[in-house]
Amino acid sequence: MGRFITLITDFGLSDHYVGVMKGVIYSINPEAKIIDISHEVPRFNIRAAAYLLKASWSYFPLNTIHLSIVDPGVGSDRKGVLLERGGHYFIAPDNGVLSLLLDDPSLYKAYQILNPDYMLPWLSTTFHGRDIFAPCAGHLSKGVPIEDFGPGIEGLVRLELGPRIKEGEIIGEIIYIDHFGNLVSNITRDLVPPLRSIVIEINGCRINEISRFYSECKAGEVLALFGSSNHLEVSVNSASARELLGVREGEEIVIRMNR
Amino acid sequence: MGRFITLITDFGLSDHYVGVMKGVIYSINPEAKIIDISHEVPRFNIRAAAYLLKASWSYFPLNTIHLSIVDPGVGSDRKGVLLERGGHYFIAPDNGVLSLLLDDPSLYKAYQILNPDYMLPWLSTTFHGRDIFAPCAGHLSKGVPIEDFGPGIEGLVRLELGPRIKEGEIIGEIIYIDHFGNLVSNITRDLVPPLRSIVIEINGCRINEISRFYSECKAGEVLALFGSSNHLEVSVNSASARELLGVREGEEIVIRMNR
Amino acid sequence: MGRFITLITDFGLSDHYVGVMKGVIYSINPEAKIIDISHEVPRFNIRAAAYLLKASWSYFPLNTIHLSIVDPGVGSDRKGVLLERGGHYFIAPDNGVLSLLLDDPSLYKAYQILNPDYMLPWLSTTFHGRDIFAPCAGHLSKGVPIEDFGPGIEGLVRLELGPRIKEGEIIGEIIYIDHFGNLVSNITRDLVPPLRSIVIEINGCRINEISRFYSECKAGEVLALFGSSNHLEVSVNSASARELLGVREGEEIVIRMNR
Repeated sequence: MGRFITLITDFGLSDHYVGVMKGVIYSINPEAKIIDISHEVPRFNIRAAAYLLKASWSYFPLNTIHLSIVDPGVGSDRKGVLLERGGHYFIAPDNGVLSLLLDDPSLYKAYQILNPDYMLPWLSTTFHGRDIFAPCAGHLSKGVPIEDFGPGIEGLVRLELGPRIKEGEIIGEIIYIDHFGNLVSNITRDLVPPLRSIVIEINGCRINEISRFYSECKAGEVLALFGSSNHLEVSVNSASARELLGVREGEEIVIRMNR
Repeated sequence: MGRFITLITDFGLSDHYVGVMKGVIYSINPEAKIIDISHEVPRFNIRAAAYLLKASWSYFPLNTIHLSIVDPGVGSDRKGVLLERGGHYFIAPDNGVLSLLLDDPSLYKAYQILNPDYMLPWLSTTFHGRDIFAPCAGHLSKGVPIEDFGPGIEGLVRLELGPRIKEGEIIGEIIYIDHFGNLVSNITRDLVPPLRSIVIEINGCRINEISRFYSECKAGEVLALFGSSNHLEVSVNSASARELLGVREGEEIVIRMNR
Repeated sequence: MGRFITLITDFGLSDHYVGVMKGVIYSINPEAKIIDISHEVPRFNIRAAAYLLKASWSYFPLNTIHLSIVDPGVGSDRKGVLLERGGHYFIAPDNGVLSLLLDDPSLYKAYQILNPDYMLPWLSTTFHGRDIFAPCAGHLSKGVPIEDFGPGIEGLVRLELGPRIKEGEIIGEIIYIDHFGNLVSNITRDLVPPLRSIVIEINGCRINEISRFYSECKAGEVLALFGSSNHLEVSVNSASARELLGVREGEEIVIRMNR
């Protein structure tokens, strides 16, 4: 096979955790190709992981397996899930990490990971990434049918991550802040009528138009644009909007449409 | 061949050092598969590297080559070592990085890396990872016999990393702190009698039992458990024990067994 | 093919940007082998990227493709460039990232990346790494001729990165500071006469000789040596010269040659 496997975790890069998961996968399928998306998801931040997964999965080849492990409940009775959607495969704890894939139940099928044949023989209670999820990815990449991992499952945990939409107003929030300090909101391009004039408000700052690229403004100026994932972002050309506006994750952002 | 090669260094990820080592390996063996374990070992911290190596190597396929380079003495007369144990291969400076593999001399064979045929033609005095250790891994992965790299060697540098064991008491220390702030001690599961009641003391904090998983306690509560590497760890559910207890590497941790 | 592709960016490792670029490359050429050099180039620091590229490219196999993306002008009219030199290929925005490859125009050929057949169908204005440069690398690695990507181009942006040389004096500056706090200057080994006695001055500190390796001095002592890239570096054995000398990028460093 040689199927691609992507990784999103909050494990960080300083410890051996990610490397050990890769060792487990390669021990099962030496032909696998593993690609890191991020291991710097803020600790225990399920919403950030959900956003990163949504923004990345469709850029990979068909049949790619996407492992997303932010798992504060490891060892408890939270379930492990294997989900197929659009020819891609997703492995994660059932805690909301997959929320942004669950909008339309007709588009996916999900299974609970329960078959011990596809787990490490000794299960720890603190590292299911190594003991359950990595082996699942390894065996799936070798062609084990998805139904073999466990029974079908419904009612997956789904966090509400979208904005509230009112007459003439969209009330969203900052769900992610990237390495450049760009403030990524949960307001997507399809929600904003392209031809109406708007005002964007965030933390006392008003922005009156949507730019197309960063250097359209002068260095140091605040701007809003639809970023590469089609989410509305607040940015500062050649500087950090996070620092300049003093905004943190969860901050409200409002779009008002003029009549 | 296409043998797996893992990397543990304190080189960090911002510079070109790790990438250049990979370029050297792939130039020698384009079929190699290189896996990063960690490049964020605290600078010059040989004990941390020894722990990460111990916690990771056995999860990789047989014949994997493990490069571990924390090398404050680069350029001096410290030796370079190539060691075979249990069908795995280890390459490192002889400064204690391999300490946790050296418990039983009947289990391994070691060679000093001296053959210039398997080094870069121009040796720097500051980057033996690139000039000596990476080429050694590349050539070994192509099938060069281990004896060809240099003569057998004994008396490798071995740091004492274990706890002191007394009647009714184990006096260990924190040897590693992970990304989540979990405090990893040098007390392993085999040293602790499973059926006796115990008290764990660290920095004025007392813990009266060993938990099984993090979310067994309430968020913010201190707990102790055997982590995924079978070392006793002090943790806080959904928070950082490092921050909450103000503990640093080297801190004493004591287990007292009740009669 | 399976040609090697290296990556230097200022995208950081916490977001999905690097992973998505890899997904795009693998979607075009599943046999590509991608190696990270650094994604921690200081934000928008074109000079640092130029140094890292210079210090790394020649350690990779012939035909390697080197993607270097530090791109504050993304979306504006700055050009995209594909350059061939010495059997290696370089892809970058035309903003100076390639400066250190441009010393001799007879050694390279450059093309402007303009052919939309080798871009993603939807171009964003904020992420040409994903939409233009990664697809270019993917198609090039599959054997598309370099001339097919666009017309030849001359007059590439070239930053002046070298030192000023006077009678008996070389006036350079710190162009890069590495993970260990070593201060890397723009003074290369070929500029310094090996047999004359010299004095090095930086931020009020005088160094009277060039050492060969770090542990030649006592721990904590300041020293100068030619680092693994043949640039003059100021270092402290087992500590950080950045912290000890309080020096930042751009600091002047002077070598005075005695008569």
